[in-house]
Amino acid sequence: MPELRKDPITGRWVIIATDRSKRPGDFIRQTVPPAVARVCPFDYGNERKTPPEILAYRDSGARDEPGWRVRVVPNKFPVLGIEGELNRQGEGMYDKMNGIGAHEVIIETPDHAATLCDMPERQIEEVLWAFKERVNDLKRDRRFRYVLLFRNYGEAAGASLEHYHSQLIALPVIPKRVKEEVDGAKLFYDLKERCIFCDIIREESAAGARLVTETDRFIVLEPYAPRFPFETWILPKRHESHFEESDAPTLQNLAWILRSTLRKIDRALERPAYNFVVHSAPVQDAPLAHYHWRLEIMPKLTKVAGFEWGTGFYINPTPPEESARFLREAGIG
Amino acid sequence: MPELRKDPITGRWVIIATDRSKRPGDFIRQTVPPAVARVCPFDYGNERKTPPEILAYRDSGARDEPGWRVRVVPNKFPVLGIEGELNRQGEGMYDKMNGIGAHEVIIETPDHAATLCDMPERQIEEVLWAFKERVNDLKRDRRFRYVLLFRNYGEAAGASLEHYHSQLIALPVIPKRVKEEVDGAKLFYDLKERCIFCDIIREESAAGARLVTETDRFIVLEPYAPRFPFETWILPKRHESHFEESDAPTLQNLAWILRSTLRKIDRALERPAYNFVVHSAPVQDAPLAHYHWRLEIMPKLTKVAGFEWGTGFYINPTPPEESARFLREAGIG
Repeated sequence: MPELRKDPITGRWVIIATDRSKRPGDFIRQTVPPAVARVCPFDYGNERKTPPEILAYRDSGARDEPGWRVRVVPNKFPVLGIEGELNRQGEGMYDKMNGIGAHEVIIETPDHAATLCDMPERQIEEVLWAFKERVNDLKRDRRFRYVLLFRNYGEAAGASLEHYHSQLIALPVIPKRVKEEVDGAKLFYDLKERCIFCDIIREESAAGARLVTETDRFIVLEPYAPRFPFETWILPKRHESHFEESDAPTLQNLAWILRSTLRKIDRALERPAYNFVVHSAPVQDAPLAHYHWRLEIMPKLTKVAGFEWGTGFYINPTPPEESARFLREAGIG
Repeated sequence: MPELRKDPITGRWVIIATDRSKRPGDFIRQTVPPAVARVCPFDYGNERKTPPEILAYRDSGARDEPGWRVRVVPNKFPVLGIEGELNRQGEGMYDKMNGIGAHEVIIETPDHAATLCDMPERQIEEVLWAFKERVNDLKRDRRFRYVLLFRNYGEAAGASLEHYHSQLIALPVIPKRVKEEVDGAKLFYDLKERCIFCDIIREESAAGARLVTETDRFIVLEPYAPRFPFETWILPKRHESHFEESDAPTLQNLAWILRSTLRKIDRALERPAYNFVVHSAPVQDAPLAHYHWRLEIMPKLTKVAGFEWGTGFYINPTPPEESARFLREAGIG
């Protein structure tokens, strides 16, 4: 008998197909092919092919020259424009505003073919520092109410350039799904006077069935009511609502655990395409006692069809208890 | 400059990329290939290869024999099971219930390769009658609070069988996205004492920019803040909250306008994969003054990536004013 499970934060129900459950080998997968050398605007020597850099960590060299280790540039085809006053207006019975925002690309490495699984830990740590620095810079701009950090890996996950990179979008509104999460967590806090994510961390750490791994500072788990098979959350154990408040030891540990988790996913699912997203509190909010940031990894294993688009109701063919076991058994430290 | 637009029903913002907007030819598309004859459980003579039929319209023949025009059977691999008492329970800090529900397949035609665009109008009308009859039957079961009718056309839209069919899932809970729509429409009604969908119909019919076509009974339009390029809504002009209350002339006219709209999409976008979904009020509710059913068609033209999954915030590269124009120009009556 399948199960209906409720996401404790947003109240969204999902169907977990417990009896015809899919194991890693059952997914029709496309392994992401290794990147091959080709003319690429993110390689050394092509710095003038991108818009001028916003931030770079360098060993040597001048601005927009080779020698960088991590480089952040505006997206050449931004979905939102950085210039102008925010202007809300009506249009007949509808509401709109001009598309003010920021859209940046975090080039994680000059090495055209390096994935996060291959990179030295120190390199990933610098990528995370770039995330933090950019969010802290953008939040000073009061037009921006939310900053989303995300990564599309592999064509099936929406990546259009081979050279691996992350992206950032700063928005003048708080996205609905973020608001739902923050509001849902607030409801729990009002009732219990505890952070729901802190409760989840304690519960999952003690129970172990959905636990992938944990360190002093982080826990990796499969959530109770995941939308997708092998959806994986990395949560800091110490309560913190804003990712960009993370200190140096936290980012160092996150680099290690992120690489380790991606390696487990790579091994269990044969290098699948994936998206990851940093869920963090709205940037203009003061630290929130009821919200807790996390990094969410979603391997692309299934197709979303009419049922999901119509209802926001997801059918997940792999119980999180099973995906957690497969990831634990992938066994990379 | 791109625009941020707000969906007037749910309050969800979307980004409409007005200046790098995509025309039909810009989408990397996979045309759905014509179905080829192969052994198929939905063909005449293979009726015993499906579970026993629930409903069939026939010219001749007995139950589970050839001679039917439309046939409804339980899904052989249902995502929910029909038997048992609904049982809500806790699991640690979480909430779950057993997976009670119905999952049925509406086999729209015995012709293995016929699409809705090819079928006689009368055949489509019978498919719609089967939709109506099945919902009316299932709503008598008080365990079910929502019934979703949907169709996945083409592999990219999640279809797994070549012989075209629609599906129905009856659920013991009201999906979150449905609840958001009904609640959003209620908020508007409380403020204005009018149905927001009736307002949209009047506004779009008068303005014309997002109008695709209209008849006495239906309007076809591109919504103001669509999540996807060429997202298309078919709405009844007379206020009705529940699809299954539609009368005979309404279903007859819907058959015509559905085929005509799908033909326009086929022509403008070269036979794309699509999902359609019937958005209707929760089945146990009495007729609602504030909600209005509709059929929503979503061609699969873009990939959903990390940004969308993380925020529920969609980037749409084609303004609905342009997609409406392309569909109007496709010109099939």
